[in-house]
Amino acid sequence: MSEQHHTASEADDDGPAGACEDGRHGYMSEKSKYLTRLRRVEGQVRGIHRMVDEDVYCIDILTQISALQSALENVGLALLDDHLRHCVAHAMESGGEDAEAKLQEASAAIRRLVKS
Amino acid sequence: MSEQHHTASEADDDGPAGACEDGRHGYMSEKSKYLTRLRRVEGQVRGIHRMVDEDVYCIDILTQISALQSALENVGLALLDDHLRHCVAHAMESGGEDAEAKLQEASAAIRRLVKS
Amino acid sequence: MSEQHHTASEADDDGPAGACEDGRHGYMSEKSKYLTRLRRVEGQVRGIHRMVDEDVYCIDILTQISALQSALENVGLALLDDHLRHCVAHAMESGGEDAEAKLQEASAAIRRLVKS
Amino acid sequence: MSEQHHTASEADDDGPAGACEDGRHGYMSEKSKYLTRLRRVEGQVRGIHRMVDEDVYCIDILTQISALQSALENVGLALLDDHLRHCVAHAMESGGEDAEAKLQEASAAIRRLVKS
Repeated sequence: MSEQHHTASEADDDGPAGACEDGRHGYMSEKSKYLTRLRRVEGQVRGIHRMVDEDVYCIDILTQISALQSALENVGLALLDDHLRHCVAHAMESGGEDAEAKLQEASAAIRRLVKS
Repeated sequence: MSEQHHTASEADDDGPAGACEDGRHGYMSEKSKYLTRLRRVEGQVRGIHRMVDEDVYCIDILTQISALQSALENVGLALLDDHLRHCVAHAMESGGEDAEAKLQEASAAIRRLVKS
Repeated sequence: MSEQHHTASEADDDGPAGACEDGRHGYMSEKSKYLTRLRRVEGQVRGIHRMVDEDVYCIDILTQISALQSALENVGLALLDDHLRHCVAHAMESGGEDAEAKLQEASAAIRRLVKS
Repeated sequence: MSEQHHTASEADDDGPAGACEDGRHGYMSEKSKYLTRLRRVEGQVRGIHRMVDEDVYCIDILTQISALQSALENVGLALLDDHLRHCVAHAMESGGEDAEAKLQEASAAIRRLVKS
């Protein structure tokens, strides 16, 4: 997966589009909380893998997939809330082009979460 | 996770609610395909974990979360399709109470997928 | 909108893809129930139109939009349940090509509901 | 429906929670655009009502319901974008308690859109 996250905005780590004004992302203060939640999500995926491997009934697997989707959605929503509170808020305070870029980016991310 | 998937319907593995008529679940013929897809999903989760750990920009993490949700949805939809084609189809052919139980169960699973 | 619902499958109303075996769709027995729910949905849309017209606060409008989406989803899920119970069940009982066509069609409809 | 939209936040129309700083909501400058889109949505609902009334095939009705959900989602996402750009941006510029209230409110609205 590591190759998949080298996206355009990550690349220019010092530019306005790929970082907060102060170079610190919104989730940083609670990084360990996110890491713990993602470990749990990883455990859920492994649990589903095991269920398929052990021929568990389809409907029970689907129930776990729905639970996993809900957990992932919550991680995404928490990250987005942190992003609005920090990166977007900072950009809005300084105003100008960066504020507009950050807003467009946030709206596009919200759209992807709603549509996925 | 293993403790989480011991649900009611899995328990009665020989009863009508937790198994297909013939005791074989719909996804079995393509089990290795599902296991491969779930390994890939697990890799995606680990990739997101690494992104948070390496302080990657929030929006790029959100993009990967949306991609992961889409991949998971596709696994769920494929499992459901297999379930309708096998377990539900068998139950409908034999008719009666089991057909009704299987339909209610499938509709509830579809509802959870749509709502999650 | 009337022109929008003249789709391919509706056109061949007497063929296997656009109708149940017996020419009666799953929702027919409860047609008036669906008509009532759709009238209520129409009222909800008009309510949202009025809110925008009266300059109601954005967040309150968004709350009504979420409620409307949920109501619509429930109509879709009920229609799908009826469809599985009637059209798909009939096709499965007679088996063959039509059963396969109906299953593919139902899976595609479930996918659209999950993805939208 | 009109009685349903008299929510708490709408009530205190001059307070910080139910209005933008300047008393003008984000969507106001494009009000006629939203009214047009909502008229179209209302037409889509009436089209679906007619389809049920005329016994159109279930799957075709489900297709129109998915299209309608997508149209509604787009209205919600546009309203949210306007809200972030105006009401939330204004609150952030002035800072303090109102900024925090606006952010919590926006995050809750995003959550409802994602979950519905």
